[in-house]
Amino acid sequence: MHHEHHLKSSDTIKDIVIGMADGLTVPFALAAGLSGAVDTTSIIVIAGIAEIAAGSIAMGLGGYLAGKTEQDHYNSEKKREYYEIEHLKHLEIEETKEFFANIGLSEELQEKATAEISQDKDKWVDFMMRYELGLEEPHSNAATKSAITIGLSYIAGGIIPLSPYLLIPNASTALNYSCIIALICLFVFGYFKSKVTGQPVWSGALKVTITGALAAGAAFGMARLINGH
Amino acid sequence: MHHEHHLKSSDTIKDIVIGMADGLTVPFALAAGLSGAVDTTSIIVIAGIAEIAAGSIAMGLGGYLAGKTEQDHYNSEKKREYYEIEHLKHLEIEETKEFFANIGLSEELQEKATAEISQDKDKWVDFMMRYELGLEEPHSNAATKSAITIGLSYIAGGIIPLSPYLLIPNASTALNYSCIIALICLFVFGYFKSKVTGQPVWSGALKVTITGALAAGAAFGMARLINGH
Repeated sequence: MHHEHHLKSSDTIKDIVIGMADGLTVPFALAAGLSGAVDTTSIIVIAGIAEIAAGSIAMGLGGYLAGKTEQDHYNSEKKREYYEIEHLKHLEIEETKEFFANIGLSEELQEKATAEISQDKDKWVDFMMRYELGLEEPHSNAATKSAITIGLSYIAGGIIPLSPYLLIPNASTALNYSCIIALICLFVFGYFKSKVTGQPVWSGALKVTITGALAAGAAFGMARLINGH
Repeated sequence: MHHEHHLKSSDTIKDIVIGMADGLTVPFALAAGLSGAVDTTSIIVIAGIAEIAAGSIAMGLGGYLAGKTEQDHYNSEKKREYYEIEHLKHLEIEETKEFFANIGLSEELQEKATAEISQDKDKWVDFMMRYELGLEEPHSNAATKSAITIGLSYIAGGIIPLSPYLLIPNASTALNYSCIIALICLFVFGYFKSKVTGQPVWSGALKVTITGALAAGAAFGMARLINGH
């Protein structure tokens, strides 16, 4: 079957991509920005680590809460559908017919298909959830795992371009190394991100790299501006 | 029709929520973190503005590229479906039958429904895009608008809790005001976010506020730790 070629990445890979995309970009850009305003690296390291702590928690916890909300939403909608096929059956019948009308079936087949599908309550509710409401059942425990994966990916991505500031006391020297490391990492990350999401790899790698460079450039420019250089 | 009560927020509101959720949290948390390590606010302001510049570009451009990728993906899959119903019709017929089998129709209705739906090529492709591949047609220009909305929302969210540091030279005094302002903003934002996404409003407001407080606490703690307090 050809549709197996539509590359669908796993939820874990998606979470790694989400966390690392921002993790590689924002702490790097912040550190680059501060390099335009201060001479020693100690304050840059503190700011960078504080940013990584804040960003990983905001994104990780954000991912957790989004996952929980999705689960709650799915469960409450499912309960509602069971209630409705019990107590408002005529309306649900109408809606099911409408679905078959919309995809282009004749009046006759709309009736017949609706009659068949409404015989098994569980199958009918599953059908309504997926095709009327467009909701997929979320994995259980997905929220916790997602939070941890996104948070750790943010930390991993953020630490790498910050490492020169940890080793080199002069800010502008550290900035040079950090830029080289960050741009290489962004390019490699963009390449693999494009690969797992089924996009053209080289243009994808370039897009991610340019995003990081622009963010760092803007942060550097703003910091210089405020600092009066 | 009861399903009009399923509150679906517009794409613009979703983008505002995406940008503002991080914008209200991360620059605030970074500034709070730096307050644990430095005494004057000038460096905090520079770091905060640099973070807002970096974050808004990373998120805005990230949103833009994600939107563009979605459009490209949709268009290439659509071309592929047209190619396939032309050249691999027997396979597409099988897949369409499979869809009707999966939702629970009898062998007879699977045949009939597939025969009807495969008569109009455009309708058939639309059906395959939506229900086999689960892809909705993205709005044109959505990517650019999305980028600007997310970026501006991040800036708007980021500036508010940073404002005390602009006005008050003492870091720990500014931190107190910033925390009060940020927690109020996070609570109000969480309330409206929950309202537009159809979640329980008070618990939603609390979740967003706690996320911000934890991020700020972690940033503060890390900064103090590195600074050797």
